[in-house]
Amino acid sequence: PISKLPDVGTSIFTVMSALANEHRAINLSQGFPDFNCPEPLVNLVTRYMQEGFNQYAPMAGMPQLRHKISLKTEKLYGYRPDEETEITVTSGATEALNAAITAVVKPGDEVVVLEPCYDSYAPVIRLCGGSPIYVPLVLPDFSVDWDQVKKRISSRTRMIIINTPHNPTGAIMSKPDMDRLANLLSGSDILVLSDEVYEHMVFDGKQHYSVLQHPQLRERSFVVSSFGKTYHTTGWKVGYTIAPPALTRELRRVHQFITFCTPTPFQLAIADFMDEAAHYLELPSFYQAKRDFFVEQLKQTRFEVVPSAGTYFQLAKYSGITDAYDLDFAKQLTIETGVAAIPVSAFYHNKTDNKYLRFCFAKSEETLKAAAQKLAEV
Amino acid sequence: PISKLPDVGTSIFTVMSALANEHRAINLSQGFPDFNCPEPLVNLVTRYMQEGFNQYAPMAGMPQLRHKISLKTEKLYGYRPDEETEITVTSGATEALNAAITAVVKPGDEVVVLEPCYDSYAPVIRLCGGSPIYVPLVLPDFSVDWDQVKKRISSRTRMIIINTPHNPTGAIMSKPDMDRLANLLSGSDILVLSDEVYEHMVFDGKQHYSVLQHPQLRERSFVVSSFGKTYHTTGWKVGYTIAPPALTRELRRVHQFITFCTPTPFQLAIADFMDEAAHYLELPSFYQAKRDFFVEQLKQTRFEVVPSAGTYFQLAKYSGITDAYDLDFAKQLTIETGVAAIPVSAFYHNKTDNKYLRFCFAKSEETLKAAAQKLAEV
Ligand SMILES: CSCCC(=O)C(=O)O
Ligand SMILES: CSCCC(=O)C(=O)O
Repeated sequence: PISKLPDVGTSIFTVMSALANEHRAINLSQGFPDFNCPEPLVNLVTRYMQEGFNQYAPMAGMPQLRHKISLKTEKLYGYRPDEETEITVTSGATEALNAAITAVVKPGDEVVVLEPCYDSYAPVIRLCGGSPIYVPLVLPDFSVDWDQVKKRISSRTRMIIINTPHNPTGAIMSKPDMDRLANLLSGSDILVLSDEVYEHMVFDGKQHYSVLQHPQLRERSFVVSSFGKTYHTTGWKVGYTIAPPALTRELRRVHQFITFCTPTPFQLAIADFMDEAAHYLELPSFYQAKRDFFVEQLKQTRFEVVPSAGTYFQLAKYSGITDAYDLDFAKQLTIETGVAAIPVSAFYHNKTDNKYLRFCFAKSEETLKAAAQKLAEV
Repeated sequence: PISKLPDVGTSIFTVMSALANEHRAINLSQGFPDFNCPEPLVNLVTRYMQEGFNQYAPMAGMPQLRHKISLKTEKLYGYRPDEETEITVTSGATEALNAAITAVVKPGDEVVVLEPCYDSYAPVIRLCGGSPIYVPLVLPDFSVDWDQVKKRISSRTRMIIINTPHNPTGAIMSKPDMDRLANLLSGSDILVLSDEVYEHMVFDGKQHYSVLQHPQLRERSFVVSSFGKTYHTTGWKVGYTIAPPALTRELRRVHQFITFCTPTPFQLAIADFMDEAAHYLELPSFYQAKRDFFVEQLKQTRFEVVPSAGTYFQLAKYSGITDAYDLDFAKQLTIETGVAAIPVSAFYHNKTDNKYLRFCFAKSEETLKAAAQKLAEV
């Protein structure tokens, strides 16, 4: 019997991190910090474990955490989701994306996906018997061509997936983008899956615009976020979704059979730590400083920095250096230069190569400096 | 648009635990301990978090943990699975079951399921476009009627799911059962999904017989286990699968898009703690003492104890008390008597009611005694 995903290999993040480890390269590929999470957060987890909070959490998430998510959402986006019926805690944003797609996409359905995009969207759509309908973002600034999107919408369109701030490009969607999307969808029953895991990493005074701020979109959307990105705990796998009650009901129907629930001591610790609003309010300047530092260093190299508005990723164009295919170049750079990055072709279904590499700058200045020095040798 | 699982409600475990909390009943419904996990395990998690192990684990699991799983499997079952190609760490056994089914079941496939059974199997099969083919276990001892199984196997059968020790009945499969299964499947390419999460809870000197001990079955099987059950950490959500390389490859293809990976500090702590073999070697006597204590108490009540060989569940027949439908009786017992249990009809697709309730005895003697005293009033 043939594979259900015959053309899907090991995720590029696994491939590049493994190669980086093998060759002891500086790993700017997979997106995760090389510094620790806040110590008080660790202490809270310890306390809850000692107090015995080591058994199943409720399937929808700990009430304390859903409450804090609700309050924070209101504070940031002016909309207060109902904790009982609209918020679900998941085992990372990856599970949230899986659950949202699996909950609603049926065989024959089409899902519009803007490329380049995160590598889990399309396989999950296909596992549901759906078809991803790809619309490329427009270079050089990776903006959405809404006329193109409109052309690809059909009677079979079940959902459109958007991602802002955008991995891997750092582009963000504006209010006019969201208005345009709302217009396109008005009168249809097409759903939106909005991947907003980098919501707290927007720079240069720009603002994240959440689907939750847009009533016409909100009522048809699953919004996904991630505590891993916000609290430097990518390895804890705690994420969540916000969606209207009817969508949340469908999402939980499948979530209960995907992971059932998410680690209890992490949920309780994060709920407490969310009172420290300073942490996420300072995240833009914290990461902007790292981005600026890394970009400054990159200027000493032959890589060309691509302006970006958010995320902890920096794209760099390397066409001035070589014509090599980006995956080959990324491997060569890891093995010979000692710096691992992600080839952006991995985010395209047909592996389109525009000569970009993606560098993760969620690293100490020391790491970023050492990487840039190596890159300067190229 | 209609739900993909229109007839699937909230899982019975959520329903009964919520009802128990609402009415402050003693909760013997959902399966989890009311005592804490070993303190050294908590200390290990703390140490790893403090040392900064809070970022993504490798997709297949931490090598340290896979290594320990491999050694332990050899020690217990005489087969040493390859850590690189045969072991995958998952976010609980629930994710492992989901990933195994999703990896191989395609639209039109049939999957043989022995009833009563855990409530996630059938919905996941259906989400894949497959059909569960139900074969009832034979009362009163819940044995497998292999002739019935044989009759329900067809050219469309992709997989059979077995569960030993068995939730909710406590029945275990014998070597002759496994031989019979191997015979049935011989010459076909039908796969086996063997849910062995209660592998360390077998009583009265009986032995768990794992599919891994049976070469003809092993080569076509996904075996699922759970650290939550073994280490009293159901809320940490760490489980794993063992399967031959070709099956593991397919499983990882989907696992990477379900949760991607499982919390790093838990994986590292469990890997270290697995050196304390005494913990799981003493689990049978630890839980047998609880079972014996609870059964002794139940003899003072009008509930009829059903002999069982394993798991931390005890079935009790209540037909001497009332003719009520088991779900109604379970709710009444929770609200009026103050003890929550699981109605066994929830484990049947057509909600067959044989007048059994399932009690979880993974509780302190104090809890078990208090529960039995209340049950004696019925
Ligand atoms: C789940 S591994 C991928 C991490 C990530 O989000 C990225 O590097 O893009
Ligand atoms: C995941 S909640 C269900 C726990 C359990 O395995 C049971 O009670 O049967």
